[in-house]
Amino acid sequence: MRHLLSTRDLDRAAAIRLLDIAEDMADTQLREVKKLPTLRGKTVVNLFFEDSTRTRISFEAAAKRLSADVINFSAKGSSVSKGESLKDTAQTLQAIGADAVVIRHGASGAPRTLANSGWIDAGVLNAGDGTHEHPTQALLDAFTIRRRLRPGASRGAGLDGVKVTIVGDILHSRVARSNVWLLDTLGAEVTLVAPPTLLPVDLAAWPARILYDLDVAIDEGRPDVVMMLRIQTERMRDAFFPNPREYSRRWGLDDERLARLGPDSIVMHPGPMNRGLEISSRAADSAMSTVREQVSNGVSVRMAALYLLLSGNTEEGS
Amino acid sequence: MRHLLSTRDLDRAAAIRLLDIAEDMADTQLREVKKLPTLRGKTVVNLFFEDSTRTRISFEAAAKRLSADVINFSAKGSSVSKGESLKDTAQTLQAIGADAVVIRHGASGAPRTLANSGWIDAGVLNAGDGTHEHPTQALLDAFTIRRRLRPGASRGAGLDGVKVTIVGDILHSRVARSNVWLLDTLGAEVTLVAPPTLLPVDLAAWPARILYDLDVAIDEGRPDVVMMLRIQTERMRDAFFPNPREYSRRWGLDDERLARLGPDSIVMHPGPMNRGLEISSRAADSAMSTVREQVSNGVSVRMAALYLLLSGNTEEGS
Amino acid sequence: MRHLLSTRDLDRAAAIRLLDIAEDMADTQLREVKKLPTLRGKTVVNLFFEDSTRTRISFEAAAKRLSADVINFSAKGSSVSKGESLKDTAQTLQAIGADAVVIRHGASGAPRTLANSGWIDAGVLNAGDGTHEHPTQALLDAFTIRRRLRPGASRGAGLDGVKVTIVGDILHSRVARSNVWLLDTLGAEVTLVAPPTLLPVDLAAWPARILYDLDVAIDEGRPDVVMMLRIQTERMRDAFFPNPREYSRRWGLDDERLARLGPDSIVMHPGPMNRGLEISSRAADSAMSTVREQVSNGVSVRMAALYLLLSGNTEEGS
Repeated sequence: MRHLLSTRDLDRAAAIRLLDIAEDMADTQLREVKKLPTLRGKTVVNLFFEDSTRTRISFEAAAKRLSADVINFSAKGSSVSKGESLKDTAQTLQAIGADAVVIRHGASGAPRTLANSGWIDAGVLNAGDGTHEHPTQALLDAFTIRRRLRPGASRGAGLDGVKVTIVGDILHSRVARSNVWLLDTLGAEVTLVAPPTLLPVDLAAWPARILYDLDVAIDEGRPDVVMMLRIQTERMRDAFFPNPREYSRRWGLDDERLARLGPDSIVMHPGPMNRGLEISSRAADSAMSTVREQVSNGVSVRMAALYLLLSGNTEEGS
Repeated sequence: MRHLLSTRDLDRAAAIRLLDIAEDMADTQLREVKKLPTLRGKTVVNLFFEDSTRTRISFEAAAKRLSADVINFSAKGSSVSKGESLKDTAQTLQAIGADAVVIRHGASGAPRTLANSGWIDAGVLNAGDGTHEHPTQALLDAFTIRRRLRPGASRGAGLDGVKVTIVGDILHSRVARSNVWLLDTLGAEVTLVAPPTLLPVDLAAWPARILYDLDVAIDEGRPDVVMMLRIQTERMRDAFFPNPREYSRRWGLDDERLARLGPDSIVMHPGPMNRGLEISSRAADSAMSTVREQVSNGVSVRMAALYLLLSGNTEEGS
Repeated sequence: MRHLLSTRDLDRAAAIRLLDIAEDMADTQLREVKKLPTLRGKTVVNLFFEDSTRTRISFEAAAKRLSADVINFSAKGSSVSKGESLKDTAQTLQAIGADAVVIRHGASGAPRTLANSGWIDAGVLNAGDGTHEHPTQALLDAFTIRRRLRPGASRGAGLDGVKVTIVGDILHSRVARSNVWLLDTLGAEVTLVAPPTLLPVDLAAWPARILYDLDVAIDEGRPDVVMMLRIQTERMRDAFFPNPREYSRRWGLDDERLARLGPDSIVMHPGPMNRGLEISSRAADSAMSTVREQVSNGVSVRMAALYLLLSGNTEEGS
């Protein structure tokens, strides 16, 4: 694997291999082996054009646990913006010998621009670009689903036949986008539930069923997984956005809807949650919730991604 | 030692043990052993909700000298604030496998909330919370006093009978608060000198004598140690605050008062100093001043604290 | 070498030695040796009073490749300013055992103040101070020239007889200033080309020829090296500054002027470039351009500088 830009680039074998390596990484943590020598001498640059401390430190911890050197490059607020500047920045990264660049950018497609530019030899890892993709989030979600639904027998498995319902602002969600492609690749059946104004226009091309009514999705769909998306409250000022009360009443996972889920279903959320808005506290804290595991699995999945990118580079270099 | 939240939690034996380990740490520096393998594979997170570059890099240097990995998490200006958010942040720290969290927070009690929350397994180290406590500052002050007043024979000793006078804005000073408890535990006799409006209301519970007149404290108290607190000039707009000229005249350590101290007394200040306000330049730079040693001893004391917290965790884990 | 503050402090032997060590450093990178143990246990502090992510990460990568610990201290926006505060900051750096301080400061002379203060034992490395100097930029420029003009035989050589023309806002350029002294020391013949209002008043003391007309400089000077300076567009509001169109027409390296340079000439720029203003895209991207090499050589040169400063300190310490 040369880059990790979009879950659309992953075929089933590649996705399962990454999830299996993440299982190995999680195992080393359980065995209290906190530091692996795997990436000693490699340099990982966190190139963040948007603030996202959580994602940054998850990647930083993953890289350091593999003994890589980490350089944080916060481009937010600096003179660096896009186009020409991304090129200048890339040249600096090339100059310092970056082996992997973890990039977070407000513009959809910026990571691919960087990867395809020829400006750098480093592997590029998309840590979220605009409303486009957030592939490691989707991978950690798939990892979490697989572990929960196939306890003790997850290695090598896909998610065939697993019914996943994703609920919320699909239009602006890179999490939803990355998840839909990856879940489909792994064999899951995906349903999207959203207010009509918060669905993308190219929806016909998505491998997913569309519903507008969460109650129908729960009662008729019998989902194994309900994934609630975070509402970005700053979008609420938008005329196309339902008001919070209506949003919560129609598309929130409240206690009553939680009770109607099957007993083996799981409730997911990429965090941080708006409790009382898209999810009730009971739903967030219930035994069905995987919120904590998702965060924790993030480090294992990012270790696996860095490992695949950087050991791949080494082979090319030799 | 599981956490370091308040000097009130330290009994005499624990406090002396920490100071003795700090002596060992200081010795390794003298012998030009700059890096100890003690905490290899451990992750220390600096979680700073307030800017404090000095304190942060002192902890960072201490952790790196013990070969720990350090991840800086500046929560200032990010969406992270308190309550629910501290929980979300804690889950991220737990997820990345933090072994120790060094927390600086504007709200008094936040470090204890984090430590008692059950959200994380990491040891919590209070690096200053609101007007509450700053235990490593008090420990480095005690370390400095012990070394100066018991040269060559400090190991194992407390501060029995040492007369310490702390002068300034006691009300808002976490440094004063942490010092009073620790100094009392170690056997010192503490006097507080302050304008009446800058003393806390629960003063009766403090193990210290109160004076309003610095001249009386010097001439009748014959202190071994005069510790001047930093005036936070932004508080001066407060109606209860004396104006700078009056403050300096009545509660500042000027040249004339300096001359009246005993020849073996020491002058302390946590820095950075407002020269000409709470302390004169002559006092700050005199041979009696320990200001430089305090900063330098801070690294040894923080190494000792990290060592005690993290080696303790290991024992629990095995 | 105790500090690196100004290229004026370097004699010819010292400059060539540094460039030769930088060649060794570049060689280790070619051989895929990404990490040298040379500075293990040493602490390098990046003390940046101004934002300059590029320069900071170049130094950070250089230090980490030599296995030093790096602590980033961004003083911008903090309460740290100058005078007394620089002293307080220095004491903190001394306390944490900094072996080298890489300082970037808006005030010309701040690095020398720090180096001569007696406040710290660390070696001081000027990473740009006001409009004064930026010695590692000049060294990487000299390194780049030497490699390009003496391929395969650069070791041990100076730049004797090399004709270098520096074009742009000389008055405000620390890059120009550092380059002029170093190039002269290495035997090069330097010509400065600038609008009359953008030349310094003490020009008589500079070892360089002055021209106002870039066409004359190219056609009669036959330069081996044309070094274009970055126009800081925020200065353009200044009444003494030509308007952008006039600037570009008279002092920009456009395609037509590029074509008139000798076939073996090289075109340099410290980056980031204002394409279409001081340099055309064709000039920037031509085979004559060394822009990318300059950035990349920066890491090798900074590794050499850190090596010379820190191994020198060790000898003094023993």
